[in-house]
Amino acid sequence: MQVWKEYQEQHKDRFLNELLDLLRIPSVSARSEHKEDMRKCAEAVRSSLLQAGADKAELHETAGHPIVYGERITDPSKPTVLVYGHYDVQPADPLNLWHSGPFEPVIKDGKIYARGACDDKGQFYMHVKALETMVQTNTLPTNIKFLIEGEEEVGSPNLANFVKANKELLKADVILISDTAMISMDTPSIDIGVRGLSYIEVEVTGPNRDLHSGVYGGAVANPITILAKMIASLHDENNHITIPGFYDDVVEATEAERKLMAEAPFNEQEYKDDLGVKTLWGEKGFTTNERTGIRPTLELNGIWGGYTGEGAKTVLPSKAFAKISCRLVPNQQSDKITKLLIDHLNKIAPDYITIKAELHHGGEPYMTPIDSDGYKAAARAIEATFGKSPIPVRGGGSIPICALFEKELGLKIVFMGFGLDSDNLHSPNEKYDLANYYKGIETIPYFHKFFAEK
Amino acid sequence: MQVWKEYQEQHKDRFLNELLDLLRIPSVSARSEHKEDMRKCAEAVRSSLLQAGADKAELHETAGHPIVYGERITDPSKPTVLVYGHYDVQPADPLNLWHSGPFEPVIKDGKIYARGACDDKGQFYMHVKALETMVQTNTLPTNIKFLIEGEEEVGSPNLANFVKANKELLKADVILISDTAMISMDTPSIDIGVRGLSYIEVEVTGPNRDLHSGVYGGAVANPITILAKMIASLHDENNHITIPGFYDDVVEATEAERKLMAEAPFNEQEYKDDLGVKTLWGEKGFTTNERTGIRPTLELNGIWGGYTGEGAKTVLPSKAFAKISCRLVPNQQSDKITKLLIDHLNKIAPDYITIKAELHHGGEPYMTPIDSDGYKAAARAIEATFGKSPIPVRGGGSIPICALFEKELGLKIVFMGFGLDSDNLHSPNEKYDLANYYKGIETIPYFHKFFAEK
Repeated sequence: MQVWKEYQEQHKDRFLNELLDLLRIPSVSARSEHKEDMRKCAEAVRSSLLQAGADKAELHETAGHPIVYGERITDPSKPTVLVYGHYDVQPADPLNLWHSGPFEPVIKDGKIYARGACDDKGQFYMHVKALETMVQTNTLPTNIKFLIEGEEEVGSPNLANFVKANKELLKADVILISDTAMISMDTPSIDIGVRGLSYIEVEVTGPNRDLHSGVYGGAVANPITILAKMIASLHDENNHITIPGFYDDVVEATEAERKLMAEAPFNEQEYKDDLGVKTLWGEKGFTTNERTGIRPTLELNGIWGGYTGEGAKTVLPSKAFAKISCRLVPNQQSDKITKLLIDHLNKIAPDYITIKAELHHGGEPYMTPIDSDGYKAAARAIEATFGKSPIPVRGGGSIPICALFEKELGLKIVFMGFGLDSDNLHSPNEKYDLANYYKGIETIPYFHKFFAEK
Repeated sequence: MQVWKEYQEQHKDRFLNELLDLLRIPSVSARSEHKEDMRKCAEAVRSSLLQAGADKAELHETAGHPIVYGERITDPSKPTVLVYGHYDVQPADPLNLWHSGPFEPVIKDGKIYARGACDDKGQFYMHVKALETMVQTNTLPTNIKFLIEGEEEVGSPNLANFVKANKELLKADVILISDTAMISMDTPSIDIGVRGLSYIEVEVTGPNRDLHSGVYGGAVANPITILAKMIASLHDENNHITIPGFYDDVVEATEAERKLMAEAPFNEQEYKDDLGVKTLWGEKGFTTNERTGIRPTLELNGIWGGYTGEGAKTVLPSKAFAKISCRLVPNQQSDKITKLLIDHLNKIAPDYITIKAELHHGGEPYMTPIDSDGYKAAARAIEATFGKSPIPVRGGGSIPICALFEKELGLKIVFMGFGLDSDNLHSPNEKYDLANYYKGIETIPYFHKFFAEK
């Protein structure tokens, strides 16, 4: 639509600057010291919705960080699109690996570098600017609701209660989420699934205090050694996960599905070069795309214990810790896997240490049917702006709340993501290409148009 | 000797206050930010030697922290005792586990709590106060030299050069060191050996940057998992160390020696209760005292990688690190073991990661003959003040420079330590009992007396 294109071209710089302002707010939900920044960011989102043309926009308090809700109801008889996104971001550390401040966004080589640039501020803000485009050009063909939360990166602990208590408010015909990636600008794709998550923290305690490793070493179990042995045992020699029952509920992909996946463009050498590794690693019997898409995984997200400073300290530490998370695929259940994992760790823990393993958060896997109205509208929208039909792919990440949305609101979810795997999500130097940002703003109005025409 | 006892009783409080002042200086050799504190501490040691009656005391510059040398030459025809000690201390972290500031010494229940209280400020300072006692009472029967260095806790990297270049200055008849422990005040003992050390740091790199564990997890080797597998493989199911050649040079204890060791008082239940562990761990086929005394060990002193902060971060980290140290027994050589360890780690490292393993520092094991004049003088001194003959035991710790002293200066070393294993050396809440401090000051002059009488 020429009118959208013209409006967007004209306001291009402002669309960017507004996003940069949002990226300057260090809205790290995991860290209690950013509590006030979280509120500040929520307020900024609320204002931006009103400025873009929402009839109303409000903060809803939770036990944690506030939820932003906004809406533009043009005509109750028209279909309603519920846009979900999150204004919180992952912690920025390790800070020393950033080339510029994580909360001081810079544009370099046509890319915005900042924590949250892609995940998810840059992506949900495309919807705000798409709303503005349609409102200002009098072309909004749907009702639109925004649910932008502040706890996605910590597992959405308070969103479920809000959804359950506000079913009427959130009533819609489809949920649209931009919080995933596409293969590339040349090969647009739509995620048809997100994996579930079980994230736990483990504490292993040996002696009741740090000891001199010369005086006690060799006679008392070292919690680092024991934790390492426990971690080492979680994958067998074929990199299968060894927790009994772990794979029981996994829906194995059919040969036909695997064949289709194998057709997605993938260059192993480029993949390895990009990551700087000589050899790939993973579960025997599966391809890289299968390992990240249709197979559950167990990853160590962090480990620490003993002396980690400069120089040497000959200590036999009292404690060692690890953060471990599993990605889950349909039909695994987060609660069940968390229990299997924690029970297994307790079982394999030898009696010369004590262990405490606890849930951080979890989320269920989710699959979008490609014959749904939402998926079809997204595919048509992408075709309209990219000139080619998107490939449906299974994404590796997790959006914990998806399964609950479907259950409580009875809605299908469409993942229309414009990020790239190379955007360094959750890593130093997170980025979002300007081209992707603008392409998203251009594409979203088409989604509303095609969804309204369904 | 009544005259010593009276002098010491009279100056008791000052002897304590002077030590407390020394403990207030945060002389952490491993941390570059304490460079100036190191010099300040060296200056304080120098002044204390002059004040105690040294003829001269001076700082010798090194590539690292200064060495303090002092002497009181009464008569060149008399025997000379070279006292070695160190004014540097281990890092104090984890700080949150200290009940009071590590460099704000407090007296509680008859114990001095501070970093360095026992290791080694409290112990070498007994010799300074013993010198003062003998000088002030005109009873010094020997010449006495002090060599107090500032890099013991980081492996004495610059002491060897100093010793080699100053053989004449350091000429003596015996080296006396108080930097070890005794079994208890009721069961005095003398260490007849210290273990050697090989301390390395390992860096394992997987992908070239931190990755999103959902997007890449399962397809790229996680450096924490790989490091854990490598660490786990270093001890077999009997807790023997698996590095090929590791035990080749170990001098096995004879049955007679093992029988003698088994006679030293040891209550396993008390030992476990003190450490708060249900079961002890260690190399199969050896007792606890053997494991810490006559067997080499491999301990993890630290591990870190990925996200270690509050909350959760779903990251697949680029790097993971560990600090690993081995304690060595006679006839193992530090250089050789370090090479075996590093070569082995490189060999077992799989090709989907890269590894960098480097030496921090090392030191050779050392044994004192119990029929030497020095040992006999120490045993008689302890008998004079404790009322019982000390038990010779093999200590688990390391004093890296001992083997070099013997080689370069041709001297035997006597370890007359007054610490306790429960003094929390290298740990939070390091302490030194006032009773042990005063008992040491009381005992040391007897060593000089008996050594002069030999």
